Amino acid sequence: MSMTHTTELPRTAAVIGTGTIGASWTVLFLGAGLQVRASDPAPGAEAHLRAFVAEAWSSMEQLGHTAGRTLDAAQQALTVHASVEEAAQGADFVQENAPERLDIKRQVYAGLESVLGPDVIIASSTSGIMPSTLQEGMQHPERLVVGHPFNPPHLIPLVEVVPGKQTSEATVQAVLALYRALGKSPIRLRREVVGHIANRLQAAIWREAVYLAREGVASVEDIDLAVSAGPGQRWSIMGPSMIFNLAGGLGCMEHFLEHLGPALETWWADLGSPHLDADTRRMLVEAFGTPDPARFTQAVEHRDRALLRRLQALDADQHDTGAAPAA
Amino acid sequence: MSMTHTTELPRTAAVIGTGTIGASWTVLFLGAGLQVRASDPAPGAEAHLRAFVAEAWSSMEQLGHTAGRTLDAAQQALTVHASVEEAAQGADFVQENAPERLDIKRQVYAGLESVLGPDVIIASSTSGIMPSTLQEGMQHPERLVVGHPFNPPHLIPLVEVVPGKQTSEATVQAVLALYRALGKSPIRLRREVVGHIANRLQAAIWREAVYLAREGVASVEDIDLAVSAGPGQRWSIMGPSMIFNLAGGLGCMEHFLEHLGPALETWWADLGSPHLDADTRRMLVEAFGTPDPARFTQAVEHRDRALLRRLQALDADQHDTGAAPAA
Repeated sequence: MSMTHTTELPRTAAVIGTGTIGASWTVLFLGAGLQVRASDPAPGAEAHLRAFVAEAWSSMEQLGHTAGRTLDAAQQALTVHASVEEAAQGADFVQENAPERLDIKRQVYAGLESVLGPDVIIASSTSGIMPSTLQEGMQHPERLVVGHPFNPPHLIPLVEVVPGKQTSEATVQAVLALYRALGKSPIRLRREVVGHIANRLQAAIWREAVYLAREGVASVEDIDLAVSAGPGQRWSIMGPSMIFNLAGGLGCMEHFLEHLGPALETWWADLGSPHLDADTRRMLVEAFGTPDPARFTQAVEHRDRALLRRLQALDADQHDTGAAPAA
Repeated sequence: MSMTHTTELPRTAAVIGTGTIGASWTVLFLGAGLQVRASDPAPGAEAHLRAFVAEAWSSMEQLGHTAGRTLDAAQQALTVHASVEEAAQGADFVQENAPERLDIKRQVYAGLESVLGPDVIIASSTSGIMPSTLQEGMQHPERLVVGHPFNPPHLIPLVEVVPGKQTSEATVQAVLALYRALGKSPIRLRREVVGHIANRLQAAIWREAVYLAREGVASVEDIDLAVSAGPGQRWSIMGPSMIFNLAGGLGCMEHFLEHLGPALETWWADLGSPHLDADTRRMLVEAFGTPDPARFTQAVEHRDRALLRRLQALDADQHDTGAAPAA
């Protein structure tokens, strides 16, 4: 992507690695009208990728994110290539989704840099490797940035943008603008931390959920319901700090902290720190019973229809007569 | 409520204490077709309560939870009384929302028990006092149970039901059936713990959110977005354990734990434990700027419209062609 057009979409994205995450990015890019040049060494990768696009396209249609393309047109805008180098030809943005192994990713970057102009951004979907480590030894380390999606990226808005020590500010700004232009909600990390942010927040709530189940306070099922029938309804609208800010009434966060800060510190002091030992694992597995493919498929379909409803509600929020919930 | 009709709604509920929580319970009961007898010693309590009912009624209409009543009919089904004893006359269920002080609540229970038949359940909305403590010294302690809502109870489905040491199993079963008949999603706690469950889970996620902001990993605003643009979308559909169960694919929770258990334990080990010290409080207050009544009102209205959309989506999920998301 040219640095002189930071708010425009690239025309051609290379997608390196087309497993679950890469395939979902491919759908997102195709739905925004981009050409996509993909590459993955797995046998049958192209068939798998095209089947994923075909299955996901109806969601993009329901959300109105197809750039006017039919599924056929989208498949035609996708080409699959035998090598990283070939996929990189003519790309003005790269989303890398190679396996979470440093040697493999560095080999991919070497291949990409042998073809790409120096100002083409390479965004890595990594959840486990720090960008400062990824960019060591690159010819143009300033173009490497983490762009970590929340699965599946063609549906969930969040992308965590994490610069490494050598990433340029121009790269950060350009990739934030690019994800926004794709309809995503990118956030910017100022420091590299294990798990980025969303996975840490998920880990934090699940730690207490597992602790409460392990202590026999309630069933796993009821603890799940304590989220989805309770605070989960608000968390699909705004984050925990804004919720507390508004709970403070006209005095906002200051009033909230005066009145509920002491209770929160009491709860913090009482939260548990379980481990995933054998007994805990058994409890969790038994809570869901024996896996059953038919019920699993039905549950996943139910979840995905429900998620589309939430994304449509989120879209309606943003077109609401009022402003965004800032106070 | 008679123990012989556990799945039916009571005809007449007494609501003791009509602050924010009691007023919201009143709306819920009126929307289910109950007679409500309310009492609150605060000056102007009746005017405040009737204004709350008037304002909240349009939400009940949008959700189809009015039992065919107009707002006028609802107001007529509500009577406000000068004393706890008078409000208790003829009630077959009591929801108590007195201030969080043991002496006040015990005085309320003495007044109630001087009037009520022995099998009428008293549910307390307390978030901070254990039911075993509340029921000490009651004539019929077996009828006292915590029924802690998630604010506002006329909209949010969750109710945490917590029996004390002397609460009877019949009371627990009857109050679970009653809340379900009111359209709520009650959960049952098997042990009394500080903060019940939902507030502990909220505290857990907010602790990590505050830690990350304090460490400069991202802005408070971006950490909020990491929830609402990411996992928050799923948490309005299902809880964290079911999310991970489905993320395990056909191998469900067992497969998930094998593949992502080690990463979760790494994240757990790295989570922070901040305190609400002066610097942290300042950071949180400054993140939201100077309170502005006009912007606050706009934000609250935006939040409440958004919440109605989520509740309508939740209703659509439950009428979905597939089953509930169990796997």
